[in-house]
Amino acid sequence: MAQVRNKQVILRDYVSGFPKESDMKIVDSIITLKLPQGSNELLLKNLYLSCDPYMRILMTKDTSAGLGAHTPGFPLTGCGVSKVLESGHQDYKKGDLVWGITKWEEYSLVPATGMFKIEHTDVPLSYYTGILGMPGMTAYAGFFEVGSPKKGDNVFVSAASGAVGQLVGQFAKLTGCYVVGSAGSKEKVDLLKNKFGYDEAFNYKEELDLNATLKRHFPEGIDIYFENVGSKTLDAVLLNMRLHGRIPVCGMISQYNLTQPEGVTNLAHLIFKRIRMEGFVVSDYYHLYTKFLEFILPLIKEGKVVYVEDIAEGLENGPAALVGLYSGHNVGKKVVVVAHE
Amino acid sequence: MAQVRNKQVILRDYVSGFPKESDMKIVDSIITLKLPQGSNELLLKNLYLSCDPYMRILMTKDTSAGLGAHTPGFPLTGCGVSKVLESGHQDYKKGDLVWGITKWEEYSLVPATGMFKIEHTDVPLSYYTGILGMPGMTAYAGFFEVGSPKKGDNVFVSAASGAVGQLVGQFAKLTGCYVVGSAGSKEKVDLLKNKFGYDEAFNYKEELDLNATLKRHFPEGIDIYFENVGSKTLDAVLLNMRLHGRIPVCGMISQYNLTQPEGVTNLAHLIFKRIRMEGFVVSDYYHLYTKFLEFILPLIKEGKVVYVEDIAEGLENGPAALVGLYSGHNVGKKVVVVAHE
Repeated sequence: MAQVRNKQVILRDYVSGFPKESDMKIVDSIITLKLPQGSNELLLKNLYLSCDPYMRILMTKDTSAGLGAHTPGFPLTGCGVSKVLESGHQDYKKGDLVWGITKWEEYSLVPATGMFKIEHTDVPLSYYTGILGMPGMTAYAGFFEVGSPKKGDNVFVSAASGAVGQLVGQFAKLTGCYVVGSAGSKEKVDLLKNKFGYDEAFNYKEELDLNATLKRHFPEGIDIYFENVGSKTLDAVLLNMRLHGRIPVCGMISQYNLTQPEGVTNLAHLIFKRIRMEGFVVSDYYHLYTKFLEFILPLIKEGKVVYVEDIAEGLENGPAALVGLYSGHNVGKKVVVVAHE
Repeated sequence: MAQVRNKQVILRDYVSGFPKESDMKIVDSIITLKLPQGSNELLLKNLYLSCDPYMRILMTKDTSAGLGAHTPGFPLTGCGVSKVLESGHQDYKKGDLVWGITKWEEYSLVPATGMFKIEHTDVPLSYYTGILGMPGMTAYAGFFEVGSPKKGDNVFVSAASGAVGQLVGQFAKLTGCYVVGSAGSKEKVDLLKNKFGYDEAFNYKEELDLNATLKRHFPEGIDIYFENVGSKTLDAVLLNMRLHGRIPVCGMISQYNLTQPEGVTNLAHLIFKRIRMEGFVVSDYYHLYTKFLEFILPLIKEGKVVYVEDIAEGLENGPAALVGLYSGHNVGKKVVVVAHE
C-alpha cells in the first residue's frame, strides 16, 4: 500500500479577533492511499480549495451559528474540487471529479454526502469552487429566490467584486435592473464597472458619508440590497431603501472578527419602508443546483457572465490566502491550487 | 350658524427626546358647526381618541419615516371614533358613526378618505380605536399575514399587554401556538397570564439576562417573534430564534424617543437561522378589514377574545395619556374619551 506525504493546513487553536496566518500551521503527515476496509467514504486527491468568508465563523469554539466548527489540531474543512482516487460509495468511481466539503490537505477521506459529481468539464475546474459551486449557488438563490427581483429594480451590492457579489451584479443586469456596487479599492471598483457591468460603483473606504453616497446613486431609493458586510453599510442602506424593499442577508463579513459586534441603529426603517430582510444559507437551495447549471453554463460559454478568480498557488499559501479575505486582499474569488490534477 | 367651543390639543413645537405633557397645550378655539359650501369632507364630533406609539414619530420634523408629521400650532392627528354631524361625501350621512384619522379636538373637519363606517354597534364603540380598529388590524395582519403562524409554533410577543400585543397573544393561542409575553410591570404580567391566556409571561425590567430568560421559556427556540420594542429585546431574541423563524416588525417603541438609537448587534443570526424579519404598516392591509371583522366579531361576542382598555376621561387628559405610553403607564389600550356621544 502506497504511503505518501499528505501536507495539511492545521488550525492551531480557536481564534478570537482577526485571524492571522500563525493561527494555522503547515504540517507534513503521512497517508495510506487506500480506503479503509468496508468504508463507504471517498478517498480524494484535492485539486482546488475555496477561501470563503464563513470559514472564520468555524474558527471559534462557539457553535451557536449552527455551522459547526473546525477542530484545533486538525485540518480546516471547506469547499474544494477533488479527484476520486478510490470510492466506497456506489454513486462514485475512481477518476470522478467532485466538488463539495473536503479538508485543507493534499488527500482526504470524506463522506460522499455533501459531494456533487462534476459532469461538465469544458469549463475551468476551479470554477466549481466559485461560479459553479457554493458561491454561484449563493448568488443565484439569494438574488432570485430571496431577493424577488424584477426588471427596473434598483439593486445595491456590497462586497460587490467578491466571489458572490460579482455574480449578483451580473444577474441583476441580466434581469434588467440598475445596479451599484461597493468595494474596498480602486482596482475593484474598476472591475465592477468595466468587467462585471455594474452601472456605478464606489470605494466605501473613500466615502465619508455613506448615506449621502447612496442617496446620490439611488435618488429614488433601493429595491434590493444584497447584504454581504453588515454594520455601517447596512445602517446607511436602511435610510435609503424604497417601500417594500428586500434585503437578502448573505453575509456580514465586517462583523466576523469582532469580539463585540457593531450595532445597527436604523432598523425602525424596516417598518417605515415595509422591508423584508431575510437571512439565507445556500445549503437550503441545493435542490436547485441542476436548474442553476442549466442557467449558468450557457451564459459562461457565451461570455455573457464572466468570473474573476484570484489564485494562490500551493497549499502552503492557503493560510495567507484565507486570512487575506478579511482585509480584502483578494480581487475576485480566492482559490488555493493544491494540485493541477 | 351655531358657533361652539372646540377644545383642542395643540402641539407646541417639534419634540426631541421623551415627549412631555408640556409639549402640548389645551386651547379653546371656536368652530362653526357647518360644512363649508361645496366641501366633500366630513364634519365630525369626536367621541374617542386613540393613543398610539407611532404618534411620537409624527412629533419630529424629520418625515423620513414617511408617516407625515404633526404641525406645531395645530391639533395632533390620530385615530378616533366620531359621529358625523354633516357630510359632504356621498358615502356618509349625518348620524353615521365612523372611525379613522381625525384630530385631537372636540369637532373636526376631515377628508372622508381614510374613514371607515361603523356598521356594528353591539360592541363598545371605543373598541374601534383598538380591537376593531387600527391596532386590531395591526395584530391580525402582522401575526397572520406577516408571521405565517402554524399550530405548535413557539411565539414571543413584546409589549404584550399593549393595544396590539394582547391580541397577538390571543390569536397565537387560537392558532394552537405556545406563547410567551413580556411587559413592564407585575400587573401587566398577571394580565398576560390570567386574562389573555399567555402560557408564560415575564417582567422584562426584572430580568438581568434576557438571553437566559428567553432560553428558559423557549428551550427549543422561537418560531415567531412579534416585535414591538426593538433594541436589547431584539438582540436577545435573535440569539434564541429557531431555524426559519419569522419576525414581523410592528414597532420599536424603545427607540422612538432616543436621539441616538441603540444598536442591534446580533443580526448575523438572521443568516445562521435563516430568519425572515419583515416590517409592515397596517395601512397596506385594510383591504382585509371586512374579513377581519368576520373573524373577530364572533370571537368577541362569544368571549373567546377579550380586550382591555385603559380609559382617560376628557380631552384635557389627552397629553398625559399619550405621554404615558412611552413610560408604559397604560395597562392595555389607552383611549381618551372626548364625549360619550
